[in-house]
Amino acid sequence: MAVTTGKGQTMWGGRFAATPSEIMEEINASLDIDRRMAQEDIAGSRAHADMLAEMGIISADDNEAIQAGLDQILEELKNGSFPFRRELEDIHMNVEARLKELIGEPAGRLHTARSRNDQVVTDFRLWTRGALDESMQLVAGLQGALVKRAGENTETVMPGFTHLQTAQPVTLGHHLLAYVEMAERDRSRLLGCAERLNECPLGSAALAGTGFPIDRDMTAEALGFARPMANSLDAVSARDFALEALATLSIAATHLSRLAEEIVLWTSAQFSFAQLTDAWSTGSSIMPQKRNPDAAELIRAKASLISGLYMSLQGAVKALPLAYAKDLQDDKRLTFEAFDTFNLCVRAMTGMIETIHFKPENMRAAAAKGFSTATDLADWLVRELGLPFREAHHVTGQLVAKAEEKNCDLADLSLDEMQAVHKDINNSVFDVLTVEASASSRTSYGATSPVRVTEQVTQWKQRLRLE
Amino acid sequence: MAVTTGKGQTMWGGRFAATPSEIMEEINASLDIDRRMAQEDIAGSRAHADMLAEMGIISADDNEAIQAGLDQILEELKNGSFPFRRELEDIHMNVEARLKELIGEPAGRLHTARSRNDQVVTDFRLWTRGALDESMQLVAGLQGALVKRAGENTETVMPGFTHLQTAQPVTLGHHLLAYVEMAERDRSRLLGCAERLNECPLGSAALAGTGFPIDRDMTAEALGFARPMANSLDAVSARDFALEALATLSIAATHLSRLAEEIVLWTSAQFSFAQLTDAWSTGSSIMPQKRNPDAAELIRAKASLISGLYMSLQGAVKALPLAYAKDLQDDKRLTFEAFDTFNLCVRAMTGMIETIHFKPENMRAAAAKGFSTATDLADWLVRELGLPFREAHHVTGQLVAKAEEKNCDLADLSLDEMQAVHKDINNSVFDVLTVEASASSRTSYGATSPVRVTEQVTQWKQRLRLE
Amino acid sequence: MAVTTGKGQTMWGGRFAATPSEIMEEINASLDIDRRMAQEDIAGSRAHADMLAEMGIISADDNEAIQAGLDQILEELKNGSFPFRRELEDIHMNVEARLKELIGEPAGRLHTARSRNDQVVTDFRLWTRGALDESMQLVAGLQGALVKRAGENTETVMPGFTHLQTAQPVTLGHHLLAYVEMAERDRSRLLGCAERLNECPLGSAALAGTGFPIDRDMTAEALGFARPMANSLDAVSARDFALEALATLSIAATHLSRLAEEIVLWTSAQFSFAQLTDAWSTGSSIMPQKRNPDAAELIRAKASLISGLYMSLQGAVKALPLAYAKDLQDDKRLTFEAFDTFNLCVRAMTGMIETIHFKPENMRAAAAKGFSTATDLADWLVRELGLPFREAHHVTGQLVAKAEEKNCDLADLSLDEMQAVHKDINNSVFDVLTVEASASSRTSYGATSPVRVTEQVTQWKQRLRLE
Amino acid sequence: MAVTTGKGQTMWGGRFAATPSEIMEEINASLDIDRRMAQEDIAGSRAHADMLAEMGIISADDNEAIQAGLDQILEELKNGSFPFRRELEDIHMNVEARLKELIGEPAGRLHTARSRNDQVVTDFRLWTRGALDESMQLVAGLQGALVKRAGENTETVMPGFTHLQTAQPVTLGHHLLAYVEMAERDRSRLLGCAERLNECPLGSAALAGTGFPIDRDMTAEALGFARPMANSLDAVSARDFALEALATLSIAATHLSRLAEEIVLWTSAQFSFAQLTDAWSTGSSIMPQKRNPDAAELIRAKASLISGLYMSLQGAVKALPLAYAKDLQDDKRLTFEAFDTFNLCVRAMTGMIETIHFKPENMRAAAAKGFSTATDLADWLVRELGLPFREAHHVTGQLVAKAEEKNCDLADLSLDEMQAVHKDINNSVFDVLTVEASASSRTSYGATSPVRVTEQVTQWKQRLRLE
Repeated sequence: MAVTTGKGQTMWGGRFAATPSEIMEEINASLDIDRRMAQEDIAGSRAHADMLAEMGIISADDNEAIQAGLDQILEELKNGSFPFRRELEDIHMNVEARLKELIGEPAGRLHTARSRNDQVVTDFRLWTRGALDESMQLVAGLQGALVKRAGENTETVMPGFTHLQTAQPVTLGHHLLAYVEMAERDRSRLLGCAERLNECPLGSAALAGTGFPIDRDMTAEALGFARPMANSLDAVSARDFALEALATLSIAATHLSRLAEEIVLWTSAQFSFAQLTDAWSTGSSIMPQKRNPDAAELIRAKASLISGLYMSLQGAVKALPLAYAKDLQDDKRLTFEAFDTFNLCVRAMTGMIETIHFKPENMRAAAAKGFSTATDLADWLVRELGLPFREAHHVTGQLVAKAEEKNCDLADLSLDEMQAVHKDINNSVFDVLTVEASASSRTSYGATSPVRVTEQVTQWKQRLRLE
Repeated sequence: MAVTTGKGQTMWGGRFAATPSEIMEEINASLDIDRRMAQEDIAGSRAHADMLAEMGIISADDNEAIQAGLDQILEELKNGSFPFRRELEDIHMNVEARLKELIGEPAGRLHTARSRNDQVVTDFRLWTRGALDESMQLVAGLQGALVKRAGENTETVMPGFTHLQTAQPVTLGHHLLAYVEMAERDRSRLLGCAERLNECPLGSAALAGTGFPIDRDMTAEALGFARPMANSLDAVSARDFALEALATLSIAATHLSRLAEEIVLWTSAQFSFAQLTDAWSTGSSIMPQKRNPDAAELIRAKASLISGLYMSLQGAVKALPLAYAKDLQDDKRLTFEAFDTFNLCVRAMTGMIETIHFKPENMRAAAAKGFSTATDLADWLVRELGLPFREAHHVTGQLVAKAEEKNCDLADLSLDEMQAVHKDINNSVFDVLTVEASASSRTSYGATSPVRVTEQVTQWKQRLRLE
Repeated sequence: MAVTTGKGQTMWGGRFAATPSEIMEEINASLDIDRRMAQEDIAGSRAHADMLAEMGIISADDNEAIQAGLDQILEELKNGSFPFRRELEDIHMNVEARLKELIGEPAGRLHTARSRNDQVVTDFRLWTRGALDESMQLVAGLQGALVKRAGENTETVMPGFTHLQTAQPVTLGHHLLAYVEMAERDRSRLLGCAERLNECPLGSAALAGTGFPIDRDMTAEALGFARPMANSLDAVSARDFALEALATLSIAATHLSRLAEEIVLWTSAQFSFAQLTDAWSTGSSIMPQKRNPDAAELIRAKASLISGLYMSLQGAVKALPLAYAKDLQDDKRLTFEAFDTFNLCVRAMTGMIETIHFKPENMRAAAAKGFSTATDLADWLVRELGLPFREAHHVTGQLVAKAEEKNCDLADLSLDEMQAVHKDINNSVFDVLTVEASASSRTSYGATSPVRVTEQVTQWKQRLRLE
Repeated sequence: MAVTTGKGQTMWGGRFAATPSEIMEEINASLDIDRRMAQEDIAGSRAHADMLAEMGIISADDNEAIQAGLDQILEELKNGSFPFRRELEDIHMNVEARLKELIGEPAGRLHTARSRNDQVVTDFRLWTRGALDESMQLVAGLQGALVKRAGENTETVMPGFTHLQTAQPVTLGHHLLAYVEMAERDRSRLLGCAERLNECPLGSAALAGTGFPIDRDMTAEALGFARPMANSLDAVSARDFALEALATLSIAATHLSRLAEEIVLWTSAQFSFAQLTDAWSTGSSIMPQKRNPDAAELIRAKASLISGLYMSLQGAVKALPLAYAKDLQDDKRLTFEAFDTFNLCVRAMTGMIETIHFKPENMRAAAAKGFSTATDLADWLVRELGLPFREAHHVTGQLVAKAEEKNCDLADLSLDEMQAVHKDINNSVFDVLTVEASASSRTSYGATSPVRVTEQVTQWKQRLRLE
């Protein structure tokens, strides 16, 4: 093996006379990135060697030596003594070279019937599968935190907004559960991605498969894949699994950023719906009174970061002819960064949600302003006076205009004033004009009334096995 | 109803004294876009009215009038006589205003217990569900075309490339089937998206649900949804279904663009692996000899377009507080454009694949160049002489260097020349140096040999019910 | 000319035996887009024909006929009688075919020494140059509106935010002028783009230039370009001018979206810093009290749209070999949409700024809350007591904590309470604790004090020639 | 100063009772990123301290101590002994804390009349200005390499492509100069960005300016800025300079990726127009004959990466209210990565261009195929026989069809065969059908003929001062 001969040669063999320039090495090196796949690389090699031995392609003795050598490398990785060498370009060559040092000639047989192309993408699929699993668990943790706080706030009335204008009173529990629903679809997408990618490319070799009598079902099973991939060209070329992971994280991060935006709004002096704890806010070097929602702001930014990562990989894969091209090398860097970023955001959001201090009295007061029960009034006109909806809407509009003029709330109009707009209005209208009455009255499935929200909280606790 | 009173008022009621400026109207209008949801809007209204009548919220007579009116509107839409009016802003108000003209007062009752927020998103989910279904069928059609051409070319040998360098001989059938695999995952993603979005937001009203005793299961079922959405705030705010659709189309379009790139390459004079028919190429106004692969080039560009649409919507949704905000209005325009574009691309690609004329002799000749059987030689050294893989690789590298020097192919080296590099090489090595032998020898599962490709073609024909 | 022979041939000549399929026509057609460049196309043709005649390449008679024919076409375009024909694919062939109908044979000579490749990109550069000019004027209009409102509000105190937390009092005029600065840089970028693109590609022909003795300086000058482009391959291939235009609009739109976000916040019930007029807000179909800032929300969304358009074009151009490829066809659609969108947004923003009703009393009250003069206190400690800044900061932090504990403002602490934290504090400290004192005290260049802001308003009025 | 008191307090003062959680620290920390701005931070502090002393805000002694301390810190940074501490969050606090350790109390006075907000953005502008300068120089270096190779190849004929179909013969020198033109516009954009950002935010303090009598012109001048920024809110909030830098790099990288694509094509076996040296290509672990253009492929991918970075920052800035928000923190990470990536790509491309071995014979042979002189034939028909262009085009199309039928080149048709299509064709037509004649005949300004290309090479050598 040519790797360390020191004659200006690298691992790709005897033909090259000159040393790649430093710039070439810098643009080409991936060790700092792909060293994160060391464990996956060893797992893949172990499964491959076992299969080669089982099929009689290498001897049992060679396999034993390989497995022992890989054991030791794993140990070295764990205790930090593994000698990473940048000149070997990537983690795969680092492991292989170390194996050769440890066990000599049998190391050279490990690469039989495989290529770096199928080896790398096998490692990468294993890594991504694990990462998706971790993200799903973290999202479930966030759901748990949201459900818990929703359960504490099934009756807390706050303004429901559309266009950031006060629309109708809703309950805080209902609002928090909306994010639980989004997160559930996010988990569903992550799971769909994990299932779709769970096919084994190992044995596809460089691109065309191999003539060695390998058993791809055996390696697929050993590595926990559902099946081997059915087309070797596809196996080494396709990166849609990474694109799907990035897109899925991007969508999920978009949900996090919406919640983060609400935290920024709610903790502003103007809203004062909530306060972050000291642990989840920072101060300013010049304005000591600030309690800045840095983590929420960073989560907002990170949602854009992850989308950018998707675009970067999509742009790189786009219009690439088959099979492997070096353009694909960044797939790992982009994907690792997306998972690291997303997972950190979920953890931070979970921490904020668990500890944020809500201010129900401020929420309630805000809900009572801005004619938030106008729809209730319109509905009352329909239900009690039999007005067609559009007419009820029109009458309500006139009453709101009158209240705006008087700078008072709807409930502060007198019956006389109301009857001046529509003569059939009677005293019972005042029953629907409080925010509590409004919220409680919305009892349709999925609606905001405490009774509905309590049901949902109970269901979610069961689904998430929180109790 | 205030819509057409001509006093500078629009449909949102009696309060507004001034007319929105023309610029406001221009930026706000969506009729040119959302008129495509007219049928979905009517379907949603029919289901809603039936439910309102069933639950006793409106009378049977009113429902009958509403259904008859909607029938007539549907008819007007079909025969082109429906009077679209831009000043009514969107398709939903157009339909409602027309209904009022046709049936009078009962039209006003249709909007009971619903809001434009849940109405719009119900229509949009219905439309997207249908669009996903169409896209899935089109992709299946492309798969059919690919499988057919693969079946004709199970033994056609061509160069397999990595880094666009000749790597190993592969079969054209194998190459085409790689795209069938990608397309299958694309269909799987489209299906996952369709299933996830198939929940009914109708009855969520503006954002908080309603106090009217509606039956959301009934409307959900009538519209073919699996279930009503469980949280009304989520129902009117979430657009992850559209983001997922766009991301999924973007990934699928990336696959189309890879195949398009290959068509551009293959039909170049330099490759000459294929020729497009006149129907699928264009000429030049100044260079009459050109046979330009315009459709393939446009497909490449469209893959970027669709990704851009994803970014646009992700950026619009990002950091929006709940519930509905007008930022979301572009969701439809972006989604419609993505589906239109994607579907046109699939159709064009299918047409090209069905008719493209392959040139097997050129492919075969190209495969025979560039030392494409070097790996076969290396494998032979491992298998027959028992060399460790890395040493076999090194020996092969030296033989390739010698052939490069002599400007000949590997098979043109003499046995003496070979033995000068490794003395144990014998005459049987020449058996593995032809491209046919190379391709046929790769018989592992998923590999390129005609026998494996034929099996795959048969399986795909069954899965796609092509025979 | 083959264009209208009706034998299934199109304009690219005699070789093609079959009709391009309908799908091909659909994916390939651009007339609906590029018809917007009709005037630019005619201008280019006029300049080209004049030059051909001047150089003796065509006869003066032919030129006269061509100019007369183009005059008539221009008239037809203006009065709407021009017969657009989709089967002629694009605007260039439409004009040429019409010219042939009008003047016969000489029309065929117009295309001498040019190709559709240089013709199209000349038209497109002309169009983009005009569009940039319009955008610059519109941005200047917005600046004018901002300066005017700033001039009215040089003394209006509002809270300055960082992290959406109240930081320090600022003046509204100062805040509005910040956007004038951003807009000025936006205009500067638009101008830079316009200058860089102002080179003439005409005469580059298909890609290699021409052997006809043309005078490219003459056509460049006639069309208002600074010079002819120096490399014909670059001339027909490059689209960096369109990318730069899109990026520049994307950055400018990002500024608009920041201001739009502030309008959404300021017009919320929680902030109540401003109210939009009826003309610039909309109502809700179910909540008659709403005054929704739709235009502001749409502007926020459009900033993402324009960025997506940039990504779409960048992805399409990326990795295209020279020279022209059909992937570039979408350049116009994307660019037109970007300018239309941006210009509409600027117009809408200008309208909102001109008419928005500020509520100074609410702004002032908000500024007085949240310990916004804490920095003033710290600065007083540095200035009057000579404390190092970091110690002053620490003392201030303790005083804020005490006020928070007492639920009062800094100015409400007694001198005793203050001296308990730092014994040297004296009564003059209360002079810096009002928001007016705070804002007025910040008199460094670029700072928020009314005196500085008034100076800036005056300067801007001169620069923008508003008075 | 509270920074290292160990009571769970950090630098923002005395108010916080609890320690930020580890996750908060992780999401918030930026030291690993912004340590790259250490020199800029010290430069900013030196200028600020000098000005404070000059204005009498701090004493000359304090300034002397500060300058000496900063000198020592600079020295520590250079020799690697500077004690970076992650718990101090960012580089600015690291420097400040170290200064306090070194010089005690006067360190606390350095932060008078400034805030981290203006300090950070001053450092960032300084860094970006330097980075733009470096990129411009690197691009000029690439231009130099291109011009040199163009000068060697003014007469090398190759096929000019449109749609990757052979269109007309061009010269390699002309083709390479096209990229010199693009690069010149890239440099112009980088310069425009550098000039626009060259305004000094220092002295804007947190957001509102300061009451200390500072001299912002003095600090601006000391740091090489053209002037102080005129609005303090704008100064701390705006990031359009970073967006412009990213967009500009993205466009420039798109040009690199186009050239990279050509290198990939040209070095394929099918084109064989060029060969990369060993230093600029890599081999394969299983296919020893490969000479993979890894660097070119990576450059293609990086063009998408940089665009993704633009999108990430645009998405983060979009819709942020004034003034500073933590969302902006990623600006540096994204910008640093963009410059690192771009500069590495330019270096790699320069290395490839300097050393790539062209194969003129293969280029010439390719140019001679594919009827590349069809336009010359059409032009001959116009010029010599006086045919209108469109008719000449039609005649040429028929001749090409005949040659295609006979599977020969245009020059291989007999005069009889030509006259059968148009009777007036005579023997002199054969003079224009060679590729050399074709290329040489295109002598219009900017065209491909050797005489024009030689002129351009000479001009570029002067402009770039290469000789």
